[in-house]
Amino acid sequence: MSNSRRKSEPVDPKEVPKAVVSRLSLYLRELQHLLAAGHATTSSGRLGRQLGFTDAQVRRDLAYFGHFGQPGVGYRCGELIAAIRSILGTDRRWRVVIVGVGNLGRALIGYKGFGSQGFNIVAAVDVDPSITGREVEGVPVYPLDQLDSIVREQGVELGLVAVPAATAQKAADSLVTAGVTGILNFAPVTLNLPDDVSHVGVDLATELEQLCFSVANRGSQP
Amino acid sequence: MSNSRRKSEPVDPKEVPKAVVSRLSLYLRELQHLLAAGHATTSSGRLGRQLGFTDAQVRRDLAYFGHFGQPGVGYRCGELIAAIRSILGTDRRWRVVIVGVGNLGRALIGYKGFGSQGFNIVAAVDVDPSITGREVEGVPVYPLDQLDSIVREQGVELGLVAVPAATAQKAADSLVTAGVTGILNFAPVTLNLPDDVSHVGVDLATELEQLCFSVANRGSQP
Repeated sequence: MSNSRRKSEPVDPKEVPKAVVSRLSLYLRELQHLLAAGHATTSSGRLGRQLGFTDAQVRRDLAYFGHFGQPGVGYRCGELIAAIRSILGTDRRWRVVIVGVGNLGRALIGYKGFGSQGFNIVAAVDVDPSITGREVEGVPVYPLDQLDSIVREQGVELGLVAVPAATAQKAADSLVTAGVTGILNFAPVTLNLPDDVSHVGVDLATELEQLCFSVANRGSQP
Repeated sequence: MSNSRRKSEPVDPKEVPKAVVSRLSLYLRELQHLLAAGHATTSSGRLGRQLGFTDAQVRRDLAYFGHFGQPGVGYRCGELIAAIRSILGTDRRWRVVIVGVGNLGRALIGYKGFGSQGFNIVAAVDVDPSITGREVEGVPVYPLDQLDSIVREQGVELGLVAVPAATAQKAADSLVTAGVTGILNFAPVTLNLPDDVSHVGVDLATELEQLCFSVANRGSQP
């Protein structure tokens, strides 16, 4: 659907390991910091060091997607940012709807990181009539049964599931029926979705577990 | 600090790739689902299939930490859950404090996934006097300047940073000064922290970018 966007494609994007794609986001964020701090160029060594990877790792990851950087110059931050955004598909705006306007939904609506990375939250839906018909930080909240028309009329492609675990599958089903092609799920459950709908689950407890592992194993190092 | 907890340790935990540790959390969650659904045992093939990994990947990941499973039986879900929790360090409760009681802080306080995985949010702090002195879902909210005494008196080990990007470093510094050993940062900025404090950053835009990559590259597959 979007392959025409990319200039060179040494490897089929579907052959690229997930871990590499997830590091692309880290490289992108670090390059954005570097550019904002006035650095026009950087090196694989510097980029890696900031993130805790080797320079070889950085070069190997980027090599999946083409040739970047020049000998003696390194990477031009602005160019590499544009290239990574093109690879990730975030070189254009994505229209996003949120299902669930509880604390998590409100937090996601207010999250500044989305807008700056290319995501427009155009609407939210909820089943609670005391919330619908209003705006939260400029985002209109509609009744759940208007999801189909919102997705169709506003060209929404991605949906965020921000409801409790017990109703997450139902929320996701509604998004699929409405026609979104990607779902980001914040509820701590695994969703069953059709193969033609991409989805990523954000399990916040997983992040805490990773932190625990690091804290718990700190003591064994001198 | 916590190595005595583990029985066998074929590889130094610090030598284990991050990606393997992060998959442990996925295995754990899937095993918990299987056990809850009445499955006493499972196989590397089944576990992998549910999560989109090969059986070889599952076996290789677990082999970092010891010998699990039996020929002809597979893995006993309960035993493997206990083993993974011991590896991750979540076979005990962790005491957690949240800095920032805006929408995100409230969402984190109400997030059911934390309590079920071993994390006790014992307190929250905020600078806004209209919020402090109250409780949010049973969690008391104190003024920021009481952070030191909360951490000391309640034996808090982990801190969640749920403040806006502009004040995240300051919040993290306060947590370090107070004595926490691990920080989970939700603000979309990179924190500078001492080497003896573990930290994990949760960049929600990164998760959306991963979803985009998947959606954007779907069309090239027949």
